[in-house]
Amino acid sequence: MTNINDARNLTLLMDFYELTMAAGYFEEGYTDKVGVFDMFFRKIPDGGGFAIAAGLEQFCEVVDNLHFSEEDIEYLRGKGCFSEQFLDYLRRFEFHCNIWAVAEGTPIFPHEPIVIVEGPAIEAQLIETLLLVTFNHQSLIATKTNRIVRAAQGRPVMEFGSRRAQGYDAAVLGARAAYIGGVVGTACVMADRQFGIPALGTMAHSWVQMFPSEYEAFKRYAELYPDNCTLLVDTYSVVKSGVPNAIRVFDEVLKPLGIRPKGVRIDSGDIAYLSKKARKMLDAAGYPDCGVCASNSLDEYLVRDLILQGAQVTNFGIGENMITSKSDPVFGGVYKLAAVKDGGRYLPKIKISETAEKTTIPHLKNLYRIYDNDTGKAMADYITMADETVDVTDGITLFDPVETWKKRTFTNVRAERLNRPIYVNGKRVYENPPLRDIRDFCAAQVATLWDEVTRFENPHRYYVDLSQKLWDERQRLLTEFGR
Amino acid sequence: MTNINDARNLTLLMDFYELTMAAGYFEEGYTDKVGVFDMFFRKIPDGGGFAIAAGLEQFCEVVDNLHFSEEDIEYLRGKGCFSEQFLDYLRRFEFHCNIWAVAEGTPIFPHEPIVIVEGPAIEAQLIETLLLVTFNHQSLIATKTNRIVRAAQGRPVMEFGSRRAQGYDAAVLGARAAYIGGVVGTACVMADRQFGIPALGTMAHSWVQMFPSEYEAFKRYAELYPDNCTLLVDTYSVVKSGVPNAIRVFDEVLKPLGIRPKGVRIDSGDIAYLSKKARKMLDAAGYPDCGVCASNSLDEYLVRDLILQGAQVTNFGIGENMITSKSDPVFGGVYKLAAVKDGGRYLPKIKISETAEKTTIPHLKNLYRIYDNDTGKAMADYITMADETVDVTDGITLFDPVETWKKRTFTNVRAERLNRPIYVNGKRVYENPPLRDIRDFCAAQVATLWDEVTRFENPHRYYVDLSQKLWDERQRLLTEFGR
Repeated sequence: MTNINDARNLTLLMDFYELTMAAGYFEEGYTDKVGVFDMFFRKIPDGGGFAIAAGLEQFCEVVDNLHFSEEDIEYLRGKGCFSEQFLDYLRRFEFHCNIWAVAEGTPIFPHEPIVIVEGPAIEAQLIETLLLVTFNHQSLIATKTNRIVRAAQGRPVMEFGSRRAQGYDAAVLGARAAYIGGVVGTACVMADRQFGIPALGTMAHSWVQMFPSEYEAFKRYAELYPDNCTLLVDTYSVVKSGVPNAIRVFDEVLKPLGIRPKGVRIDSGDIAYLSKKARKMLDAAGYPDCGVCASNSLDEYLVRDLILQGAQVTNFGIGENMITSKSDPVFGGVYKLAAVKDGGRYLPKIKISETAEKTTIPHLKNLYRIYDNDTGKAMADYITMADETVDVTDGITLFDPVETWKKRTFTNVRAERLNRPIYVNGKRVYENPPLRDIRDFCAAQVATLWDEVTRFENPHRYYVDLSQKLWDERQRLLTEFGR
Repeated sequence: MTNINDARNLTLLMDFYELTMAAGYFEEGYTDKVGVFDMFFRKIPDGGGFAIAAGLEQFCEVVDNLHFSEEDIEYLRGKGCFSEQFLDYLRRFEFHCNIWAVAEGTPIFPHEPIVIVEGPAIEAQLIETLLLVTFNHQSLIATKTNRIVRAAQGRPVMEFGSRRAQGYDAAVLGARAAYIGGVVGTACVMADRQFGIPALGTMAHSWVQMFPSEYEAFKRYAELYPDNCTLLVDTYSVVKSGVPNAIRVFDEVLKPLGIRPKGVRIDSGDIAYLSKKARKMLDAAGYPDCGVCASNSLDEYLVRDLILQGAQVTNFGIGENMITSKSDPVFGGVYKLAAVKDGGRYLPKIKISETAEKTTIPHLKNLYRIYDNDTGKAMADYITMADETVDVTDGITLFDPVETWKKRTFTNVRAERLNRPIYVNGKRVYENPPLRDIRDFCAAQVATLWDEVTRFENPHRYYVDLSQKLWDERQRLLTEFGR
């Protein structure tokens, strides 16, 4: 399987300041100065209760392929602000960092470290933009898709958005993220070709218009694809011509072959009304097993409302609202310095902001998820300093990091470390699982969340707490550097 | 200059139905059946008065590179629904269509044809998704950027959004579209490397945090880059430490070298308040020429309001709101069949919808823009059948296509045809201009629009009218096929 990143050197997809800073660290003799950077996010898109991590596989490909070509060096020389020594450093660039990340498909929450990069700051800084654009994009689409898939309550959802995606990668990698989020397939052929995501689709309105009549267009289609016969019934009128012509063709072409029709698709008009009409007509004609696919600018709210209104839709095709996460099209992941090594030990770093919300969590850390042993439910996430051990044998008491008097004790739980080693000394130690497994893992992990957390609006805030040691350390820095 | 599409075969970035339909046309013996497809859009993003066309250059690269590799054919064979004859047709695929398009940077309006594809329907259908994703994405970003650039009223605007873009192409091609829309530069190094868009940037907060103090961080930066010294002053406190430390470094490092500082950058807090404070402090210290750059989640409305409130910002850095067109992240371009050739002449095709808005304009057409000779202003767009000639020597009277009693007569005008030939018989006949020229052209064309059309909210609706002949033809089809 070739990959969209094959033969693409994305190394220069960085912000210019990453180069000016890298050159600065180089000239300063800081090439071995070690830092720790955290990638985390602050706000869940659409006011939801959780997001879904995605993008690790592409990020690994990008990191594996980091290099500056001779043409890149020539281009950089032309900028006139880099020394030959620095350009030579780039030419011989090697990556030595350690990277930890949560697995793709994992539900994630604000402020916790999703990716941790530890190593020479000059190297860790150079990958900032590539790391962010990769995780921000795919996590955004996986998160949005999962909302829509949950709204459909088990009805299959298909990704139909390539044409409205923000560029080619947004179409193909967006389909990948949507698959992780739970769609059953995509209209995008390249996403099938590259990632094995089942590609689906039958006809556009132009097929119907190309023939002398709708009936003839349907007839020819059914003759060509009897086994995959879904007919688009809204070119002229769903009720007056589309469904009657579809039924006639099912009777004339498929019935003699002993083949059941797949479905009809409605792409315009009022889906609730039209799907009920179509259902009745199909049932009356002896096709109660024929699907009704709806695909008209739908999102999680419309899907939910259609189902509430008794729309007879068996599967949904979702376009622009999913592939761009239209209602909230930015995943605001950031990449912040958390510590700097000095004389063998870490100096924690904090970025203090006007609001507690935007103040970072210092230090090299670990991220744990506490699961209840009886229910299997995720109870809280727990962030510790990397040198702490977590033992929940006798239960664990957590406290809210802001309203510290709010405490909760969990017993009969297990703690799972979510940040897995991905790179050790710049060498990949992580094998990305097959995409299908990531999708299954995502569904299973979302199922560990309480319903209160998965609500679309005003969900319960999932607990993300700090260890006492980490909280104390952060408090010390706030006092020391706070205004 | 290498291109992001080099070595990337994007041919399979299509919807699966394009293949099932193509196979259908092939099996039907329709490989030479000629159709006309229009790409147009219905709604201007953000309720604006016009959009800006962008993406033609990448679309040409995609079309020039259309081919199905042996691996693609193997993949398609595996789908189990295509005949060997059709696979062989794809293996030897050649493109024969004629394509017309408006030049990049042109202001465009709803319902008019932006791209016209005429040729074998089987071929024209196969490029639908690639055409749409290319024009939809870049037109969206160029349109949004132009709004923000106009809000800045001449102050330079920079594109800073790569990390929040929806994938790699969205970052790089988004920067390209933003440049067409009017930004002066980008943070994205790859956009500079590939398209020559000036890359800009100095430091992140991590640079400041990496040093023992803000003063030392600024000092080292100024020593390294005295000629490009913009300092990020909000890591700790803009007023209490950032600007005072910047001034100290300007005095100590730059003044002895006889170099003036470039600026300070504020990335958080209240920009109106902080920029005025910074301005006063810089002026008092003898640096009235030192810029103040603001870059905190800005869009056209915030930029406009900041300027109204007297913010002392000399240039703006815009991230996520521009690179995703956050407030309206979908450009809804569609691709519809307008005519089919039958026995040497065109049968017009129309897609009739519930609303007049969504009903298409049939036939192979031309698109003209009527300019006033005295003012140079664009007065209206005028769509004709392709076989009509347009002579405005004695003036021209246009009528509203819906409220037909509303007429306007224009005298002393010229008519310019906007749809330029791009491909003739599948061969490219159009040379894409240098990007800088496209940017200049865009600015000049936007200047031909009346202020009433360029207003952000409730703009005047620009006239897009049909010739009498085309209107009559459309009316005839509406009567014939209407419900």
